[in-house]
Amino acid sequence: MRSDPMEDGEPRPKIRAKAISRPMSTATAVPQSRAAAVLHFAVEKVKAGLLTREEALLEIPALMLDELLHPMIDPDFQRCVIARGLPASPGAAWGEITFSPSQAERLKEQGRPVILVRVETSPEDIHGMHASAGIVTARGGSTSHAAVVARGMGKPCVTGAGDIRVDERKGTMSAGGMTLKTGDIITIDGTAGQVLEGAAPMTEPELPPDFTTVLGWADSIRKLRIRANADTPADASAARRFGAEGVGLCRTEHMFFDAKRIRAVREMILAETGERRRASLATLLSVQRQDFAEMFHIMGGLPVTIRLLDPPLHEFLPKSDEDFSEIAANLKMSEEKMRRRSQELDEFNPMLGFRGCRLAIAYPEIAEMQSRAIFEAAVAVEKDMGKPVQLEIMVPLVATRSELDVVKARIDATAEAVRRETGADVKYQVGTMIELPRACIAAGEIAKSAEFFSFGTNDLTQTAFGMSRDDAGSFLGQYILKGVLPADPFTSIDVEGVGELIAIAVERGRKTRPDLKLGLCGEHGGDPASIAFFHKTGLTYISCSPYRVPIARLAAAQAVLRG
Amino acid sequence: MRSDPMEDGEPRPKIRAKAISRPMSTATAVPQSRAAAVLHFAVEKVKAGLLTREEALLEIPALMLDELLHPMIDPDFQRCVIARGLPASPGAAWGEITFSPSQAERLKEQGRPVILVRVETSPEDIHGMHASAGIVTARGGSTSHAAVVARGMGKPCVTGAGDIRVDERKGTMSAGGMTLKTGDIITIDGTAGQVLEGAAPMTEPELPPDFTTVLGWADSIRKLRIRANADTPADASAARRFGAEGVGLCRTEHMFFDAKRIRAVREMILAETGERRRASLATLLSVQRQDFAEMFHIMGGLPVTIRLLDPPLHEFLPKSDEDFSEIAANLKMSEEKMRRRSQELDEFNPMLGFRGCRLAIAYPEIAEMQSRAIFEAAVAVEKDMGKPVQLEIMVPLVATRSELDVVKARIDATAEAVRRETGADVKYQVGTMIELPRACIAAGEIAKSAEFFSFGTNDLTQTAFGMSRDDAGSFLGQYILKGVLPADPFTSIDVEGVGELIAIAVERGRKTRPDLKLGLCGEHGGDPASIAFFHKTGLTYISCSPYRVPIARLAAAQAVLRG
Repeated sequence: MRSDPMEDGEPRPKIRAKAISRPMSTATAVPQSRAAAVLHFAVEKVKAGLLTREEALLEIPALMLDELLHPMIDPDFQRCVIARGLPASPGAAWGEITFSPSQAERLKEQGRPVILVRVETSPEDIHGMHASAGIVTARGGSTSHAAVVARGMGKPCVTGAGDIRVDERKGTMSAGGMTLKTGDIITIDGTAGQVLEGAAPMTEPELPPDFTTVLGWADSIRKLRIRANADTPADASAARRFGAEGVGLCRTEHMFFDAKRIRAVREMILAETGERRRASLATLLSVQRQDFAEMFHIMGGLPVTIRLLDPPLHEFLPKSDEDFSEIAANLKMSEEKMRRRSQELDEFNPMLGFRGCRLAIAYPEIAEMQSRAIFEAAVAVEKDMGKPVQLEIMVPLVATRSELDVVKARIDATAEAVRRETGADVKYQVGTMIELPRACIAAGEIAKSAEFFSFGTNDLTQTAFGMSRDDAGSFLGQYILKGVLPADPFTSIDVEGVGELIAIAVERGRKTRPDLKLGLCGEHGGDPASIAFFHKTGLTYISCSPYRVPIARLAAAQAVLRG
Repeated sequence: MRSDPMEDGEPRPKIRAKAISRPMSTATAVPQSRAAAVLHFAVEKVKAGLLTREEALLEIPALMLDELLHPMIDPDFQRCVIARGLPASPGAAWGEITFSPSQAERLKEQGRPVILVRVETSPEDIHGMHASAGIVTARGGSTSHAAVVARGMGKPCVTGAGDIRVDERKGTMSAGGMTLKTGDIITIDGTAGQVLEGAAPMTEPELPPDFTTVLGWADSIRKLRIRANADTPADASAARRFGAEGVGLCRTEHMFFDAKRIRAVREMILAETGERRRASLATLLSVQRQDFAEMFHIMGGLPVTIRLLDPPLHEFLPKSDEDFSEIAANLKMSEEKMRRRSQELDEFNPMLGFRGCRLAIAYPEIAEMQSRAIFEAAVAVEKDMGKPVQLEIMVPLVATRSELDVVKARIDATAEAVRRETGADVKYQVGTMIELPRACIAAGEIAKSAEFFSFGTNDLTQTAFGMSRDDAGSFLGQYILKGVLPADPFTSIDVEGVGELIAIAVERGRKTRPDLKLGLCGEHGGDPASIAFFHKTGLTYISCSPYRVPIARLAAAQAVLRG
């Protein structure tokens, strides 16, 4: 079985040279992918009058489209798998191992493909993930940070590869009986959840014309609108390319991790005085305004839902001693004081802590800065484009109507201030994530203040089950093996429990406000089985990773056809 | 205002001597407490025919009974408050400051009263909390570990005293502009949430005959049965003294922290082989059997609900380097290996992690050991008492019926094995905590397997709101100040959200099984406003801290009278 040419006993440097000299694609020698063939026959059968478009659409497994959207390992290649994990984000890639996000960035600049290997990733690693061809983590589930971010980026990712022992300090990883070090080449297959030694030959994705034809049929049938989750201009471009009809979730905090910005974010958090905080907020205002303007431009008048800051503040704080000293020096704060402030922000259960609208209520100046950046960007872009930006501002983690009211008052006041200053009247809606069981129950009351709901099914699944995505790895696998749960509820919506909470919220929300816009922006937005449920429940739109948009378009049509 | 004689500028040692020489009670000089007076007049007015018993009961604020159950600071005493926090557990106490649970135990043995001061407490500190007259924590909410345990023990506790800077290593705390050290005397008032320098004079509680009279009236009117949460024989005795009609929650893990047992618990967790695990389980089996037997004896045939192991395993692991080395040596494991295993158990959000029935499903041998201990103890005690133990075994953190089924099968098999071995047929019921929103929604399905429900309103509030009790301190205070929430939902049940989830579960559960026994064992069981709601919702019983039982008895009667 160990017929991989990478395993031929040659010393490491040769393997590496050989790997790099291998052509990126040997696709010409490989037959078209199965997905391309399926699409092709569907179109041909319709042309020949053997099937109706509807029948043809039902014959295509929606998830199969994934094969067309990402590079894959040459199907004829004999694999030498050194570790297995969860298929966290589809596609395949190879590159040099690096354990450091910063090194990933440096190597990327030198044009060298890298695979980022981590025990787990945190939001601080985003720049390194952007720079990498693929990501492997030893820990974490299919909706861990690494998995969610990688899917959004359309990069292959394997998480929870428990066989891998990572020593980030030594710069080594051991797996499958061998020890690899920084610079060694591995391939990851995020569709299969495998890590391979060496560089496997790839087949590059090509979107065949049949793809466009079939998705055109789907678009004419489906009732659900399909949006994408997009945090960066690159995401937004990918979203449009794949046919998204808007941005359903822009996580503003992902804009905070850029190397140039994170300092201002940290200053804002650690500031001891309101004055100091306002100074860093001013810096952030100008960069966020720029981010939003770019996003609005790319989306060209399609709806854009921007979520106010959501994660716990300590996610932004420096982790290493080095970073700590540097920031303390920058801020002219004693390290001791800074550590104390940082400890104060530390939490037992960050998922259930000081985050979401709780931040906006405690630090209204942050919500105000973000709202101002949004409105100022909208004013500028509307002038530029000569047409309106369809703006939706979303307040996260609302449990009670009163929370939404407090934040909405601040947003409205900022809108009014910008209107007075600029003379431009930007239309906008304020809505809320429905991602807590209590919000589902109180949806009738919350809808009195919310102009739209967007179900955050990741967090709703976590809180309904009392099960953290990041910690579920230790038991969820066994649950599914033993049949305790039929499927991973973070992948496919738990209809009986979480689904019913959504149904309750839909019913109660629409009773209060019959024209309530109902969206969804969890990971489930890209899962065909879940999409069928969302269609039945009467949602207006779903939002998923850009690379899932074609799948969602097809699945939404199939949901109509299957009734 | 600084008229406290402790503040007279004398050097510290003198203050200490003076404080210790002060008599524990100056109660003779103090008028009877307000509560005693209120009870007295209620009884007198009924005797005089001015009020009916019902009218008299409605005139007594239930929470006022607390004054009769705990020592209080002499109302005439001029207080010098050095820090304020949350009134986490009522009553007052003074003693020498200690920062170490072990030192607390040593001082207790010398007959010296101690106040345990911690940044926060963890389950490992239980022995030190038992040894202390009162507990103060710098962090944590009104349902933090310290608060919940202290209430259960009937000890005064102040949590979230953010003004206090604790340096556990140096053995100092600073507050109110002064630095106090190990051995200095402080007084805490857990009813007011205050920390005072020096030893304040106390009034001791006395249960007047009117107390018994009034509670007798209440008992004849109320529909709700009142049980107590009791983890130890001492708790169970207190529960009976205060009139509890059973144990509604026995948290078996609290029996694990005893110094002699924790080693076996750690062995069980860290064991690398099934054999090693079984050896430590055998040790635990014999001690748990003893615990349960004592509990059954004390409760003398009243119902006892025993909950299987609930908390995440890493709560039991050693925290200090010292403990770590010791355990590694005991277990003949390399420290490195032990640390790795320990890291594997570490979680991002332990509240939402590998706990509750998930443990019983992954490690069935733990559930089996606990069930066996329960059944063997019941067999022995039933023989001894000559009457049955009313046994209820409760499976925690169930989200789906299938989870309960897996654990119930193991319990039933163990019962059958013990029946075969002993020839004694112990009657028992298997039920579940309903503490997750999904369990409320799926209650109709779960009731097919559960013979009783016990609502765990602490966790249900946490998951419904997406708000950790231990982390809520950073925003919940502001929420209540700003009117975003009307009250702390961990103290008084959130009727509109959490309450409705309970109502949904009651309706669905009873629809499946009309005779379903419905209990409640959260902190809310001791809150009069919540009790009124539980009465209306049709619960069978509520279970609260032993020291809250009298309040619950009165409040349950008032709920009937108020309709």
